[in-house]
Amino acid sequence: MCRWLAYSGSPVSVHDLLYKPENSLVVQGQHSRLGAETTNGDGFGIGWYGFGETPGVFHSIEPAWNDRNLRDISAQIESPLVFAHIRASSGTPIQQTNCHPFRHGRRLWMHNGLIREFHAVKRDLVLEVDPALYPEIEGSTDSEVLFFLALTFGLEDDPPGAVARAVGLVEETGRRYGVEHPIQMTVATTDGANVWAFRYSSEGASRSLFYSTDVSTLRHQYPDNPVLHGLSDESRLVVSEPLGDLAGAWNEVPESSWGVIREGQDELHHFVPRPPSA
Amino acid sequence: MCRWLAYSGSPVSVHDLLYKPENSLVVQGQHSRLGAETTNGDGFGIGWYGFGETPGVFHSIEPAWNDRNLRDISAQIESPLVFAHIRASSGTPIQQTNCHPFRHGRRLWMHNGLIREFHAVKRDLVLEVDPALYPEIEGSTDSEVLFFLALTFGLEDDPPGAVARAVGLVEETGRRYGVEHPIQMTVATTDGANVWAFRYSSEGASRSLFYSTDVSTLRHQYPDNPVLHGLSDESRLVVSEPLGDLAGAWNEVPESSWGVIREGQDELHHFVPRPPSA
Amino acid sequence: MCRWLAYSGSPVSVHDLLYKPENSLVVQGQHSRLGAETTNGDGFGIGWYGFGETPGVFHSIEPAWNDRNLRDISAQIESPLVFAHIRASSGTPIQQTNCHPFRHGRRLWMHNGLIREFHAVKRDLVLEVDPALYPEIEGSTDSEVLFFLALTFGLEDDPPGAVARAVGLVEETGRRYGVEHPIQMTVATTDGANVWAFRYSSEGASRSLFYSTDVSTLRHQYPDNPVLHGLSDESRLVVSEPLGDLAGAWNEVPESSWGVIREGQDELHHFVPRPPSA
Amino acid sequence: MCRWLAYSGSPVSVHDLLYKPENSLVVQGQHSRLGAETTNGDGFGIGWYGFGETPGVFHSIEPAWNDRNLRDISAQIESPLVFAHIRASSGTPIQQTNCHPFRHGRRLWMHNGLIREFHAVKRDLVLEVDPALYPEIEGSTDSEVLFFLALTFGLEDDPPGAVARAVGLVEETGRRYGVEHPIQMTVATTDGANVWAFRYSSEGASRSLFYSTDVSTLRHQYPDNPVLHGLSDESRLVVSEPLGDLAGAWNEVPESSWGVIREGQDELHHFVPRPPSA
Repeated sequence: MCRWLAYSGSPVSVHDLLYKPENSLVVQGQHSRLGAETTNGDGFGIGWYGFGETPGVFHSIEPAWNDRNLRDISAQIESPLVFAHIRASSGTPIQQTNCHPFRHGRRLWMHNGLIREFHAVKRDLVLEVDPALYPEIEGSTDSEVLFFLALTFGLEDDPPGAVARAVGLVEETGRRYGVEHPIQMTVATTDGANVWAFRYSSEGASRSLFYSTDVSTLRHQYPDNPVLHGLSDESRLVVSEPLGDLAGAWNEVPESSWGVIREGQDELHHFVPRPPSA
Repeated sequence: MCRWLAYSGSPVSVHDLLYKPENSLVVQGQHSRLGAETTNGDGFGIGWYGFGETPGVFHSIEPAWNDRNLRDISAQIESPLVFAHIRASSGTPIQQTNCHPFRHGRRLWMHNGLIREFHAVKRDLVLEVDPALYPEIEGSTDSEVLFFLALTFGLEDDPPGAVARAVGLVEETGRRYGVEHPIQMTVATTDGANVWAFRYSSEGASRSLFYSTDVSTLRHQYPDNPVLHGLSDESRLVVSEPLGDLAGAWNEVPESSWGVIREGQDELHHFVPRPPSA
Repeated sequence: MCRWLAYSGSPVSVHDLLYKPENSLVVQGQHSRLGAETTNGDGFGIGWYGFGETPGVFHSIEPAWNDRNLRDISAQIESPLVFAHIRASSGTPIQQTNCHPFRHGRRLWMHNGLIREFHAVKRDLVLEVDPALYPEIEGSTDSEVLFFLALTFGLEDDPPGAVARAVGLVEETGRRYGVEHPIQMTVATTDGANVWAFRYSSEGASRSLFYSTDVSTLRHQYPDNPVLHGLSDESRLVVSEPLGDLAGAWNEVPESSWGVIREGQDELHHFVPRPPSA
Repeated sequence: MCRWLAYSGSPVSVHDLLYKPENSLVVQGQHSRLGAETTNGDGFGIGWYGFGETPGVFHSIEPAWNDRNLRDISAQIESPLVFAHIRASSGTPIQQTNCHPFRHGRRLWMHNGLIREFHAVKRDLVLEVDPALYPEIEGSTDSEVLFFLALTFGLEDDPPGAVARAVGLVEETGRRYGVEHPIQMTVATTDGANVWAFRYSSEGASRSLFYSTDVSTLRHQYPDNPVLHGLSDESRLVVSEPLGDLAGAWNEVPESSWGVIREGQDELHHFVPRPPSA
């Protein structure tokens, strides 16, 4: 439904990140190779950490490939942690409040996929959002509701646990309405230091998700590639689809799993939703 | 907060309605005389009855005075029943789904004013919306929630009663949260045949609202005014502020009242909210 | 580069024209079958004849498949002569003044293709535009300049001759700058009564163009197709690509030719540019 | 017609510059005190120097007071040289290519005022633009044409001389068409190091323009004002109207004059247009 990328590492030019790769996110807007849709032209957004506590976000309803502001603004941003997302709407309106990444305080969230039969289950799900958080919901997407459910269930303290509970609730609610496979998702979320990524779907056939190989390994493999020398060893990308064809550079995130990218050792685990009734 | 007009009568050019009067709605966008704000540039919308059961709507996030499409499209529409609204946001985002008039089936709804402390009371109000209607809420304004409350309370069958109950609920809810004057409003709603207009505020000092004098009376008064000869006797306007200075042409809608414009005799009544606890 | 359709015949719902066919223009926005690009998401426009002398136009920078106003407004328009265009920019900005159809007085104009090396030849071409017309140029596209050249060379009186001279000038100018194949085009233009269509390219390999078969013939062929019974015998479509798979319904406009659709006998001729030096 | 500000000095938050002052540029969008119009809601733009040779620009067709991206992006930019502009169109379309500041290479340009009877004189003026620069003109405003005339006449090497020649040409051309007072302007332009500001009008009654008093002087005057302690001695603002009421903080730029702000001594001179025939 959408395409996204998350970058963490040495500060990079957001422009280089978005426009330079052969199969860059901007290229994927018109010619996604692995997406459910080849076109992802229903708005876009970027989020990044820079000045102040709150990350910057820029949302637009134009296709990313057209947006001159994106080209210009991204060239003026260098950041060690960047989220970028291009949207293919599953029906909700094209408006800035429906563009990812969504932000709450210092947190960002973006999602590819959908909550099935969202129209039917929306009210029940929204009722589970913490009343103190409820008025912060600004748009009308399933993705933002999923974010607010995760916030309700403790995203600040235990992201994998909070997402497991949010997904468990979505599945249990959907099934109550007769939805066979209530959720399809890849999700990235960050607190400005760590990036958590999730790949899961009720049907066990999730949207594609990849993470980049350790830069030091790649540098050994490609000693003459100048791009790789500008990056710290810890730099890492998580992407809906590979940004290019460099052999060995990309690893698929396994079905039903979550991982965390952070200073020190990254981790990869099995993901199991936690339904409220459990 | 906003400015609106409702027209019912012989088919008119929407372009003439919006642009020709001396103090037209488009002029009011930059120079409102009686509004809470002189500028109403936060998007606009029109709704009209033409082909098919569903009225047409056109919503834009640009100021009305700039919008070339409005100029062009309105020149291609003649309609016997037109709603038009220019917005001055009280905080919610500028997006098409927040532009009036709101539509549900054959009904239109527009509002000038606000639900005070909407952030605090929103969840409680939304919970009162009929669950079958809830997923149809598309935007994030207080005005749309008020519309859905009215729909929940029977707007289809008894508009004055439904609005009285919706306003009663808003007041009772607001006061529970310590809001002294929970609502301020002028509202217009229509089913495509009749137009109901409401002027009310908890503090008894409501936004301005006017209705036009009977055309046959005006024609007697101004036998040489050509505009008046193109209109049927039943043609009537309800507006946030007079569209011009023709003496005798405009009557203030009294404080705390509602009226209906329709074929046959128009009516004007006292408006009393009906709180749920009553 | 773009996709367009021109309709002339019994009044039709613009909504039906744009959304109902299997391979409708709106579908072509994301999945063009025969276009140079599969995505045509860089804005769109419609033009139609209705009230008054001047045709209505509606231009938007959003992709057509997203635009809720298009869906709504088109459902409120019935017209005997409709132009519609979805854009894939060849580099010029996405803004309403660059959206087709362009309008001058009662005339509309739309174009698929490009003037090659437009950056290099633009000034020379613009200098040939009638100084009285020059200030009416509002956007920055090659397509609009081509329109104003045709207007300069007599589009009002002799459309095929004027277009032949405009194209001749573009070719002669381009070649002076070393451009091998200066123009690629399908063009439609109308005065509100007749529709002229052109298919031509300097390299003799022009973008696809089709016209619909005579409705009475189709009706004989498909006596049970209800759509065909709603249309007058004279109804005709010219389109960048067929709107569906009905066998026998579409004929390719031959390479290097122009035709006119009008009351009475339609015509189809060879198209030969007329360079100024000739 | 418009309002603008130019800042040069110690790096500042663009957000603070745009939103914090009592009569900030964003406030002036709805309530300009000294402007020809109280509303300046026809788009806006900012330009700033940061990464790379080319300054960043962000242009939007929304009113500045509405734009959430402006609020967010500006909070992520600190820059020693910032231009900001809010537009009140004198008739040309609201589109990003008509938003100031205009950019050419490392230069920025913004303008408040107008070329009178631009429709009549536009072609003659555009013909004087260097043919090598001509294709870079992207929008349709008088302000951009004035910029390109200044570039043609040597803005890179001698800004005051180039502007004098551009204005001289505009006046001579306008008078040829019977325009009594061909130009009204305040202009700011920069090469990333120096800022030149101009105040001039053919009628000798130019739009307001002010520059800030030397910061060290202000600091003596207001030893307790914390804002003044964050700024370097060389920090300077040039603005269409004062951003606040601090006595002694603002000096009017005299009628018919130009000044330059730069490291070392600032300068202020009489401005005299240089007509081509002179």
